[in-house]
Amino acid sequence: MASSGCCPLPDRLTDTVEMAHGGGGRMTAELIAGVFAPAFSNDFLNRRHDAALLPEPDCRLAMTTDTFVVTPLFFPGGSIGDLAVNGTVNDLLCAGATPRYLSCGFVIEEGFPMESLRRVVADMAEAARLAEVEIVTGDTKVVERGRCDGVYINTSGIGYVPHGLDIDPGALAPGDVIICSGPVGCHGMAVMSVREGLEFSSPIKSDTASLGDIVHNLLDVVAAPKVLRDPTRGGLSSTLNELAETSGVDIELDEEAIPVDPEVRSACELLGLDPLYVANEGLMLIAVSADEAERALAAVRRSAHGSRAAIIGRVQPTAPGRAPAVWLRMPLGQRRRLEMLSGEQLPRIC
Amino acid sequence: MASSGCCPLPDRLTDTVEMAHGGGGRMTAELIAGVFAPAFSNDFLNRRHDAALLPEPDCRLAMTTDTFVVTPLFFPGGSIGDLAVNGTVNDLLCAGATPRYLSCGFVIEEGFPMESLRRVVADMAEAARLAEVEIVTGDTKVVERGRCDGVYINTSGIGYVPHGLDIDPGALAPGDVIICSGPVGCHGMAVMSVREGLEFSSPIKSDTASLGDIVHNLLDVVAAPKVLRDPTRGGLSSTLNELAETSGVDIELDEEAIPVDPEVRSACELLGLDPLYVANEGLMLIAVSADEAERALAAVRRSAHGSRAAIIGRVQPTAPGRAPAVWLRMPLGQRRRLEMLSGEQLPRIC
Repeated sequence: MASSGCCPLPDRLTDTVEMAHGGGGRMTAELIAGVFAPAFSNDFLNRRHDAALLPEPDCRLAMTTDTFVVTPLFFPGGSIGDLAVNGTVNDLLCAGATPRYLSCGFVIEEGFPMESLRRVVADMAEAARLAEVEIVTGDTKVVERGRCDGVYINTSGIGYVPHGLDIDPGALAPGDVIICSGPVGCHGMAVMSVREGLEFSSPIKSDTASLGDIVHNLLDVVAAPKVLRDPTRGGLSSTLNELAETSGVDIELDEEAIPVDPEVRSACELLGLDPLYVANEGLMLIAVSADEAERALAAVRRSAHGSRAAIIGRVQPTAPGRAPAVWLRMPLGQRRRLEMLSGEQLPRIC
Repeated sequence: MASSGCCPLPDRLTDTVEMAHGGGGRMTAELIAGVFAPAFSNDFLNRRHDAALLPEPDCRLAMTTDTFVVTPLFFPGGSIGDLAVNGTVNDLLCAGATPRYLSCGFVIEEGFPMESLRRVVADMAEAARLAEVEIVTGDTKVVERGRCDGVYINTSGIGYVPHGLDIDPGALAPGDVIICSGPVGCHGMAVMSVREGLEFSSPIKSDTASLGDIVHNLLDVVAAPKVLRDPTRGGLSSTLNELAETSGVDIELDEEAIPVDPEVRSACELLGLDPLYVANEGLMLIAVSADEAERALAAVRRSAHGSRAAIIGRVQPTAPGRAPAVWLRMPLGQRRRLEMLSGEQLPRIC
């Protein structure tokens, strides 16, 4: 994308993406000028360099990358374009960074409808606008029919890390409180409902969103949250197991406190899935010390995507000689261990 | 990759990549611990955050991205792993930046041999070592058989841009001299020779390499080169057409001065290809003012990958009322226009 050459009229584009659109010649330039440049226009991208030149930051940086291969490409509540921006934005936020710049790399299947590509790109542009990031450089490859599934999108991101803020995934300590920013399992079950043809009176919508306002409101009242983490692939259980292992602690969840929408619960029961292992794309887990918990919860609840936030559990010491574990305390008081996802529950969910 | 959880023994890995290796659970953690972490180990990656935390730079940044879909994955002189590092490193160098940090995003086809993945990853690690960059964050997705072609790799890169250096792709002016750092067409014809089963007495090898030493030596003697650009997809002709259009000038090349290896010329003749449109992966075009040309050429020739550099052409004013163009001056004095690549000459060459 950065190496565009000419500026032909967009109406010269074919109805589908052809191999030559990835060839680096005239048709690549036409695809850039007709589809990408108008949607993503900004001073960095418009300079058409091999690399975007960015101003000098006065802070540390965060860098992250994610490739999106979700199927179907469009689902209730969003598309691969929304995911590709929000997923990378949220990974930066979880490192305590303010997201600033994204790159995007497309792999497109020969014959992919140009109109679908325009929709995906429009969703990316709108998600970037909402998350206040700029897409500053890009690349497009085209592969033969049957060597991709419509389109795969990689985004990489740079964020600015404020002075003094150090979010450490190994910082959990006994007594810390775990806040979940909203109901779990919405993204995964929105995608699965489409795949399985499930119908509900109110359709399940993906929660895909930037979590910028949650982090912004949280940092207003808690100077140093212990951990921020978005539980995407593998769901709440896998993410909490990672955190428990990294910090060498146990985490005990209160089953009744974990928000789950009734439609998501129904869909999970129909498909034999556990909502605690289903992917989320607009959810954040926040660990804070106990004395900050209520203040943090109130701040998260003031956020657009955090109104249903809840305290779902607490960090405990790991029993001597045992491996760190995540436990689910059930209504009658008994508890069971929540393992990390071991197989592949929901392939290509993001 | 950044969100690894546990550290199981590598020998738990299966012989092929399975869907569950992309699921975000236990098997993803095993793939990271068994394949990626040992090869790419560094302080940033080892912290296992959603994003890598990088120190504060004291200069501007360059950011670039590229996805690699080459087939076959291994070819004389390199592999998709070499390309994935060198391609992004070279794009940063062409912006005048010192390459520092790379991300990598894998899309892997279900059933891909684990041993092949290890080879690709080892090639990436070695190329990163040679180019003096660190792979600081990553992501892995797995798609079903027939939805990819072995493996696709995105790399994105951050480079540091020295104070005062401003490489502007629109800076070409009449009188400037174009230096080509070596023989053209080697990468494309190395790949095509494998695909077409061509055999030569000495096999054509890809030129894939980091161009760091060329830029380093050049900047020692020329404070402000006009343009640096690596002619990858679309080859020499397409890249020069882009530069001519961006600067609004003509470029005239001396056909006899352009270095082409005899094996590359033979292979091109056999396949009906023009070496000036064939992709390169370790070649740089350098534009400097005329009075700096000999000094620049000598500096490039002192570089490991620049010993066969040559002055191949000069920038000229565009005739009034005409579009910018690239011309090839032939041995008998006549000249013909070199267009930008218009179709798809060599699909999936990088």
